[in-house]
Amino acid sequence: MRQSRIVLVNTSHPGNIGAAARAMKNMGLDELFLVSPQHFPSAEATARASGADDLLSRAKCVAGLDAAVAGASLVIGASARSRTLPVPMVNPRQCAELVMQQPEGALSAILFGHERTGLTNDELDRCHYLVQIPTNPDYPSLNVAAAVQVIAYELRMAARIPAAKTEKSHRFATADEMELFYRHLESTLIGIDFLDPENPRQLMRRLRRLFGRVRPNENEINILRGILTSIDQKTR
Amino acid sequence: MRQSRIVLVNTSHPGNIGAAARAMKNMGLDELFLVSPQHFPSAEATARASGADDLLSRAKCVAGLDAAVAGASLVIGASARSRTLPVPMVNPRQCAELVMQQPEGALSAILFGHERTGLTNDELDRCHYLVQIPTNPDYPSLNVAAAVQVIAYELRMAARIPAAKTEKSHRFATADEMELFYRHLESTLIGIDFLDPENPRQLMRRLRRLFGRVRPNENEINILRGILTSIDQKTR
Repeated sequence: MRQSRIVLVNTSHPGNIGAAARAMKNMGLDELFLVSPQHFPSAEATARASGADDLLSRAKCVAGLDAAVAGASLVIGASARSRTLPVPMVNPRQCAELVMQQPEGALSAILFGHERTGLTNDELDRCHYLVQIPTNPDYPSLNVAAAVQVIAYELRMAARIPAAKTEKSHRFATADEMELFYRHLESTLIGIDFLDPENPRQLMRRLRRLFGRVRPNENEINILRGILTSIDQKTR
Repeated sequence: MRQSRIVLVNTSHPGNIGAAARAMKNMGLDELFLVSPQHFPSAEATARASGADDLLSRAKCVAGLDAAVAGASLVIGASARSRTLPVPMVNPRQCAELVMQQPEGALSAILFGHERTGLTNDELDRCHYLVQIPTNPDYPSLNVAAAVQVIAYELRMAARIPAAKTEKSHRFATADEMELFYRHLESTLIGIDFLDPENPRQLMRRLRRLFGRVRPNENEINILRGILTSIDQKTR
């Protein structure tokens, strides 16, 4: 199975964290990150984790999304509703295929938002893809642990089938490398007076989506950074 | 979507019943049967059902499996471990395909056993197939509501794809028709001194498995019953 990290963002019910940990361990997943959970650790989480309390106690609690997606070269966000964002939507089966197509050693992160409100726009902007579980349109909102169960199940099903040989390729840039790039890009754009920090409008969001879809590899991101550095030197 | 009934047998935690109801409604399933639940109705079940409390309040509580599979022409049992029974094992995707291959109007029932002990041998004997969710061999036992979620998800995925045209065929015998047949068969076998009611050994179980695999259609079961009646008349 390809290395996949489950990231629960801002989860409000500790029971859901425990149930998600159990679902993960049942399906052979191992790496759980919790971004600002409202109550954790918690006896309820441990009870619902059942025999997966080891996975739960290894879960990493972090304060922001940056730390939770660090090292990930594929970031997929779970979304209960169709978004009008220009981010490609996939179903859970396609999501598992994307993960399996990653080169060996590459890390994928799958994000699950707050129980009621889901992922924020800021969080969605970090995603290369959104995954939507097909549902009854009259009652579309899955429990977050149930959603983790479905996604993890598809990852396990996909891992049973030998992956198609992927071409030896450069690894994709990781989420933290992309963040450094976006910060660099933003400062460069300010430097050239293209971006007004007093009135940024939606520019950086749009650029994030664009480069998110592109999914630059290591080599390409170095080229992009090189271009930015050249611009900086010219305009300083 | 083909008509599918979820049957929870002997469930001990009411929270699991509620969570299963929610998973069902999210996936567009509607018909829940509870065989001798240990606590039901229950505030915990209602809380975990969330917006699916309507489905939960329509759930039928019955005392035995017979009533829960009445009318079903396909019965599939969820099993956490591989059994040495001669009952075909399928994965959740294949399970959904079997349901979709049923003629229109036919009812499928999918059984989920007690949280710790699963389905009993007697319950397994009623099943045409067993469905096993692929799991981490070191921690194979899913929460029962999580198992319902996975099976219901595959049913929903399968329903999105137009079913292959099935030949117009006789409908399969329902579970209650099969029970009448087995009772008739047993009495006939006793009548011909093939079966010793004082020492029945495993004969009826073996015959149940055999005819369970055959899945006779309406026409065929009438023929079989006709044969039994003829034997009865000859030997009376």
